[in-house]
Amino acid sequence: MTVTYDGQNFNGFQKQTNKNTIQDHLESALKTILKQDISCVGSGRTDAKVSAYIQPVHFDYNKAIDTKKTLHSLNGILPSDIRVLSIVETDIHARFSAKKKTYLYRMYTSNIDLPLQKHAFKISPNIDFRAMKKFLHLIKGTHDFIGFRASGSETESSVRTIYKAKLIRRGINVDFVVTGNGFLYKMVRNIVGTMLKIGGHKIDLSTIKSTLFTTYKCTATAKPDYLYLLNVKYK
Amino acid sequence: MTVTYDGQNFNGFQKQTNKNTIQDHLESALKTILKQDISCVGSGRTDAKVSAYIQPVHFDYNKAIDTKKTLHSLNGILPSDIRVLSIVETDIHARFSAKKKTYLYRMYTSNIDLPLQKHAFKISPNIDFRAMKKFLHLIKGTHDFIGFRASGSETESSVRTIYKAKLIRRGINVDFVVTGNGFLYKMVRNIVGTMLKIGGHKIDLSTIKSTLFTTYKCTATAKPDYLYLLNVKYK
Repeated sequence: MTVTYDGQNFNGFQKQTNKNTIQDHLESALKTILKQDISCVGSGRTDAKVSAYIQPVHFDYNKAIDTKKTLHSLNGILPSDIRVLSIVETDIHARFSAKKKTYLYRMYTSNIDLPLQKHAFKISPNIDFRAMKKFLHLIKGTHDFIGFRASGSETESSVRTIYKAKLIRRGINVDFVVTGNGFLYKMVRNIVGTMLKIGGHKIDLSTIKSTLFTTYKCTATAKPDYLYLLNVKYK
Repeated sequence: MTVTYDGQNFNGFQKQTNKNTIQDHLESALKTILKQDISCVGSGRTDAKVSAYIQPVHFDYNKAIDTKKTLHSLNGILPSDIRVLSIVETDIHARFSAKKKTYLYRMYTSNIDLPLQKHAFKISPNIDFRAMKKFLHLIKGTHDFIGFRASGSETESSVRTIYKAKLIRRGINVDFVVTGNGFLYKMVRNIVGTMLKIGGHKIDLSTIKSTLFTTYKCTATAKPDYLYLLNVKYK
C-alpha cells in the first residue's frame, strides 16, 4: 500500500500500547475489512508529528484481494488525516527492500512568526547559508553517523550513505531535502539541528569538522512538526 | 505597511459593520497605538477566506511615527493570523498607485482528498491541461472582462490587462499564477472557475471563445479558500 498522512495529530507511525499511531489505525481498518488480524510493516518509522507524502506499507495476506474495493473501504474507515493512495499485490518488503529514502524539512526565513507558514520552521534571515551548505557537502557519502543517532536506539551499524543533501530556496521558503540509503533513529532531525546550529554560528564547523563521524554528539534535535517523508525507492 | 494574513478565519479585507475583517483589526490596533481614529486603505479588497502573502496598506497620519516601535506594537495587538511585516513613511497610495497585482490559486490533482493538501483545491488527474492553457493564452492582454465580474459590482470600466497567466506543475501540485494591472470583483476566482470548467470539458472552449469578452457570463466562481494575493507592484 502507498499511504499518505498528516502526522500532526498522531504519535508516529509505529504501533504502541494505547497510542494513536498510523500503524494502529491501518491494522484496525484492515482487520475490519479483511476479518482477520493483519500486521503492517512500513518502510520505516516516522516520529510523532512527522508527516508522509508517500509511506510504503506492506502486509501479508493469504487470500485473493479486491484491491480497488479494499482501497475504497480503507479510506472510508480511516481518519481523514490518513489516506491510502494505492494497493498492489507484490513480493516487495516495505522495509527491507527499500533502497533510498527522501525526507523534506520545511523552513522559512523571518524575524516573526508568519500566519501562512504554519507548516514550516522559522529561521533567522541572517542565517549563514554558506556554512550550512559546507556542512551538507561534508555529510554526503558513506559515513558513521553515530553522533546523529538518538541515544538509547538499537546497536546495529550506524554507517549510512547520503546521496543528496540540499537546501532549496524560493523567496523566504527554505526546503531541506535529503536522500539516503536509510536513516538512523532521529538522524534527519539531528542533521537539521546540527545544520541550523552551524548556520547560526552556535557551532563552528571547522572546529567539529574532524569529529563529525567519530566523537561528535548531536544535542540539537530539530522539531518533528516540519519533517515529511517524501519518497521511498525500491530496486 | 506591508501586511500578511491567513484569511481563513476573516470576512475579507474590507471593513464591514460588525464583521471580523482585516481592515477592522488593523484600524482598531492603530487606534490603540496612535490614540486617534485611523482609516486604512489596502491595495485592494480580498474576499472572505482569501489570504495575502503581501497586502500593501496605507494610512494618513499627521505626526512623526516611530515605525519600528509601531510595527512591534501592532504585532503585539493584532490576531496572530495577521502580521505587519514592515512600515515605511511614503506618499504612495496603496490602491491608486498599484501598477501590477499577482494572485496565486493553489490546486492539486487527485481522486481523493489528501491530508497534506488542505490548503489547495482538489482537481481531477484527468483534467485537460492543454485546453486550460489555451484558455489562459486567450485571456492574456487587454480585454473587457465584464463576463468575469461578479454581478452587482460597481459600474466602472471592466477593461483590464493580464500580463501573465500560467499553470505551474510540480508533481501533483498545480499553481495558477496570474498578474494583471488590476482585477474586477471576483475576477480571479471567475477565471479559475472558467478554466476548470474548460479543463473538465464542461465548457467547450471553441464554442465560447468568440464570446469571452462580450456576452460570456461566468457562473462558476472558484472557492476563495485557496486564493492568495501574492504581490503588488508600484511604479
